[in-house]
Amino acid sequence: MSDDVLARLDAIEQIKALKYRYVRCLDTKQWDDFADCLLPETTGAYAGLDFADRESLVAFMRKNMDESMVSLHQVHHPEIEVDLEAGTATGRWYLQDKVMIEKYSYVLEGAAFYTDRYVRTPDGWRIAHTGYERTYEVEMSTKDLPNWKLKVKPTH
Amino acid sequence: MSDDVLARLDAIEQIKALKYRYVRCLDTKQWDDFADCLLPETTGAYAGLDFADRESLVAFMRKNMDESMVSLHQVHHPEIEVDLEAGTATGRWYLQDKVMIEKYSYVLEGAAFYTDRYVRTPDGWRIAHTGYERTYEVEMSTKDLPNWKLKVKPTH
Amino acid sequence: MSDDVLARLDAIEQIKALKYRYVRCLDTKQWDDFADCLLPETTGAYAGLDFADRESLVAFMRKNMDESMVSLHQVHHPEIEVDLEAGTATGRWYLQDKVMIEKYSYVLEGAAFYTDRYVRTPDGWRIAHTGYERTYEVEMSTKDLPNWKLKVKPTH
Repeated sequence: MSDDVLARLDAIEQIKALKYRYVRCLDTKQWDDFADCLLPETTGAYAGLDFADRESLVAFMRKNMDESMVSLHQVHHPEIEVDLEAGTATGRWYLQDKVMIEKYSYVLEGAAFYTDRYVRTPDGWRIAHTGYERTYEVEMSTKDLPNWKLKVKPTH
Repeated sequence: MSDDVLARLDAIEQIKALKYRYVRCLDTKQWDDFADCLLPETTGAYAGLDFADRESLVAFMRKNMDESMVSLHQVHHPEIEVDLEAGTATGRWYLQDKVMIEKYSYVLEGAAFYTDRYVRTPDGWRIAHTGYERTYEVEMSTKDLPNWKLKVKPTH
Repeated sequence: MSDDVLARLDAIEQIKALKYRYVRCLDTKQWDDFADCLLPETTGAYAGLDFADRESLVAFMRKNMDESMVSLHQVHHPEIEVDLEAGTATGRWYLQDKVMIEKYSYVLEGAAFYTDRYVRTPDGWRIAHTGYERTYEVEMSTKDLPNWKLKVKPTH
């Protein structure tokens, strides 16, 4: 039993690291490494924005999360359940995100609960499905904030 | 000794999951599940707002965190100490919270350090005391932000 | 092997607790406890602001993060790699920070990726190097928000 507890804790740590890599690659726009967190058959469902496979999901991100967009995606409160025998897991996360597009004076702030599925592969755990439901989403314009300044932008 | 380390790590994971459930039920207004994270004798002390038992604490939340209020409570930096023999634990967390009441153009943003006590019961770990001290609290009015828009609200 | 997994998980928990203590002491301005997270030879590199040792790093914080400054530093997404034999570790974290100076109507919000090095000492793990690269940094003035109010400030 002690071995099972340990194997479960170890799997949870690996799944957390996978999720952190997924959002890090999203915010730093490293699309090849982002794609590597997913499987060819991975599906996505972001509050009404659906993807049937990895190819369409990554293509969308690559096109829309372009250099003009500065983003923050931080995920919290992992509630991860592992089925060691099946090599599968589910995960719930509490997202906080922010998107800024300076040229449109656009700022979005929101939060959401992620519901993910993971599978264990010979190369480690991968995301099989990822999706979220928003708790809220706020839009603002920096035109209302004349002294708002984006001082540092990421350099990729 | 190795078994003790493992039991402690396992207890810490369970206490984290309990705390995540507590704030998830708070932000999604699932008051029965929220109450289930506490014991009948659980006390609360939120920066001057005190509760002597679960009944009064949950009744307050149910009444005040109503549908007009959109909230975000995310807890970070768990520093959890477990006494395995006594079946008790303490936890420190770093909260970031946000409350929005659209009809009053009201936005609150703040942070605080939680100091919790937990006890192990036959049904799993429960919160015996929860409370926080604020590091800061900021109030704003969306009247100063004419383009501010609450695009998505939670549906419960 | 099972013992190694356990020792690694235990080290990761201790390193997380160390990092949480470091940022808690920063935001609560407990400079002696802050210094205790570092070694005399610890170096720092905060997006262009470099420190060659603990003495200069702590002296800078003590002087510049004074009582007029309210700060939030929350670190997320730990990706920690431990070399148990060498007694060393590396850590990546995703920071979200906020600084407010009321008398200057000044608000800064940003995010960054930390890259830390840790060493195991007879007194526990310590930070040997800490530094970050920003993904973004935004400055605002509360002069644009006439209803902005700092309701609660920390009392140290």
